[in-house]
Amino acid sequence: MQNAPPQAAPPQDARPTAFTFRVDAADGHARTGAITMPRGTIRTPAFMPVGTAATVKAMYPEQVRDLGADVVLGNTYHLMLRPGPERMARLGGLHRFMLWDGPILTDSGGFQVMSLSSLRKLDEQGVTFRSHVDGTAHHMSPERSIEIQGLLGSDIQMQLDECVRLPAEPEAIARAMQLSRRWAERCRVAFGEQPGKALFGIVQGGDVPALRVESARALVDLDLKGYAIGGLAVGEPQAVMLAMIEAVEPHLPRAKPRYLMGVGTPDDLLRSVERGIDMFDCVMPTRAGRHGLAYTRHGRVNLRNARHAEDARPLDPSSACPASRDYSRAYLHHLVRSDEILGMMLLTWSNLAYYQELMAGMRAAIRAGRLADFAGETRETWARAEAERTARG
Amino acid sequence: MQNAPPQAAPPQDARPTAFTFRVDAADGHARTGAITMPRGTIRTPAFMPVGTAATVKAMYPEQVRDLGADVVLGNTYHLMLRPGPERMARLGGLHRFMLWDGPILTDSGGFQVMSLSSLRKLDEQGVTFRSHVDGTAHHMSPERSIEIQGLLGSDIQMQLDECVRLPAEPEAIARAMQLSRRWAERCRVAFGEQPGKALFGIVQGGDVPALRVESARALVDLDLKGYAIGGLAVGEPQAVMLAMIEAVEPHLPRAKPRYLMGVGTPDDLLRSVERGIDMFDCVMPTRAGRHGLAYTRHGRVNLRNARHAEDARPLDPSSACPASRDYSRAYLHHLVRSDEILGMMLLTWSNLAYYQELMAGMRAAIRAGRLADFAGETRETWARAEAERTARG
Repeated sequence: MQNAPPQAAPPQDARPTAFTFRVDAADGHARTGAITMPRGTIRTPAFMPVGTAATVKAMYPEQVRDLGADVVLGNTYHLMLRPGPERMARLGGLHRFMLWDGPILTDSGGFQVMSLSSLRKLDEQGVTFRSHVDGTAHHMSPERSIEIQGLLGSDIQMQLDECVRLPAEPEAIARAMQLSRRWAERCRVAFGEQPGKALFGIVQGGDVPALRVESARALVDLDLKGYAIGGLAVGEPQAVMLAMIEAVEPHLPRAKPRYLMGVGTPDDLLRSVERGIDMFDCVMPTRAGRHGLAYTRHGRVNLRNARHAEDARPLDPSSACPASRDYSRAYLHHLVRSDEILGMMLLTWSNLAYYQELMAGMRAAIRAGRLADFAGETRETWARAEAERTARG
Repeated sequence: MQNAPPQAAPPQDARPTAFTFRVDAADGHARTGAITMPRGTIRTPAFMPVGTAATVKAMYPEQVRDLGADVVLGNTYHLMLRPGPERMARLGGLHRFMLWDGPILTDSGGFQVMSLSSLRKLDEQGVTFRSHVDGTAHHMSPERSIEIQGLLGSDIQMQLDECVRLPAEPEAIARAMQLSRRWAERCRVAFGEQPGKALFGIVQGGDVPALRVESARALVDLDLKGYAIGGLAVGEPQAVMLAMIEAVEPHLPRAKPRYLMGVGTPDDLLRSVERGIDMFDCVMPTRAGRHGLAYTRHGRVNLRNARHAEDARPLDPSSACPASRDYSRAYLHHLVRSDEILGMMLLTWSNLAYYQELMAGMRAAIRAGRLADFAGETRETWARAEAERTARG
């Protein structure tokens, strides 16, 4: 089904029964289109807000939807520890739990097992670890990861992989890539046939182009519904990340969505879409919003800075988001300095609004065949605002 | 102007220029009516959400308005320290700062100087103290308190008073009451004539009825626009608080609003309205909401409790508030246990919704002459739910 040719959007009353991806327009390597599936349509390129523990932090689900987010991400590691996958299933699944009826993508849990848990032991079978919440012991195999994602009710599920922090020795990178490849095969068997849902493979290979290509080719042989590029944005320079995308992209099928995991800054998004990426997730807009940092059409604004204390201007008077348009920087500064929850709420809202606005801008530009112009104008606006801020001290 | 007889509500296009209070209906000692002033109408009995530092914590101002709150409270102590009254005035005042265009009542700052600051020195002139934020030294006199409340742009201003914690010696209570009385006179002079705004006096006298009556009589002689009862809900039993209201009420003019400061639980509100109180403020619904505690039509629910972990029911399916009606207790439990901001947002929202619903219920009941029935039904519903919870363990 995922190999069907691009098709027109189904009529409103006919809910699609299968996961499909279509490309509507391309501009260089960039493309715009849509994933359709029973729970809804994801316009691509898409930014997926991160809903770690069944909540996009400091946001009502209704607001996330209203900003134009078509899909949110849930973290399997967090949800398996609390409230637990079996409990979540008894409660009707993650969608009903968090009142999000659109598509949900879940990661495999592997990345956060590595970064958050203690006493990890990894072997061919999987990984054993202790919960960072209560110290309980858990085992995660490729099969259990898929089982958990199924219990959560995830629409787009990710294979279990091993992600190596960079810099690392090529031998360690190769070993983790080969293990991830074998785990992809086991996840594919465990996932089976689920026409309305999707299992994505994850290209590993660190900063070694040859390993990246080998990983991509092996995954494409498994004929999965989508392909992610993992193990980036883990400390390497942007240039390395972009080089890895460029190495992998020619080996990924044009008819399948491509997802760059855990990326990134607005500039990362622009440059990655230009290189053919269709999907992103990142905690940056939500985390930054909780720490007084705004991403705007005019670049990054640190509201903690004393220069904003009497600035009556909003973050962006032309924004459609009330948080960016209606509240003064002086007020946001006050809320941030006073550790007020409303400060986190407003800046998270404003940041997610800007991220969605940027994605919508890219989709329209690709459709109009002017992505390069759009990217240039966007970067120029950031740079001009940055220069003004520097000049003012 | 504040002595004008009760009048009909002005037409929508004619903004009132004066502060007026009218009683539309009475039921026993309870009454319902409205305060009208240039910034809007306050339906009484009214509960005022507390917006300590220019924000009702974890709420967008639009939500507070939509719940039916006609007025919010701002804390002079917090706002004088951050962002500072002169800065607030340069930014256009508190209303513009926090995007609240309805009436705002500010306290005098005195209560929180006593409870939050360090190195206090109190004499006839006022109180000298150090900020709990940055240790800077400040002086607050009755005149400076009124000046600050004016700079904030407050619509209903409170006299500076000295509030004694109970239990206390009658001599200490009498001394503080007399000082508060003299400060009321100085505040009245400092406030001058401001037809669209109001200065309220504060009845003190601790738990000594004779001192309460003396305080009330002295303040009534000053012909202020409203009278508060202060120094209660500071640790004394509810019966003492109610006895003090009963002692004071006959001495307060029927044509002026009566405001019970810092109160209280839903049951406190019911019993105080039955005794003739028109206005309340309390941090309880907002603070409880940040600590996992819900106030509902069916009593208090502690969402932290493990019994809610798989409870798919919402807090109150009949509520008009999405937070009470749409989210499961299991989800709220998960958010509270995970220290998620959304948990605080939803429970604060739900609690304020219930408080406003309770006030609206009391206003309608007074109008219908059935407040006693309403109070009885309300308490019975709380008690029945409490008994069920106890039975279930």
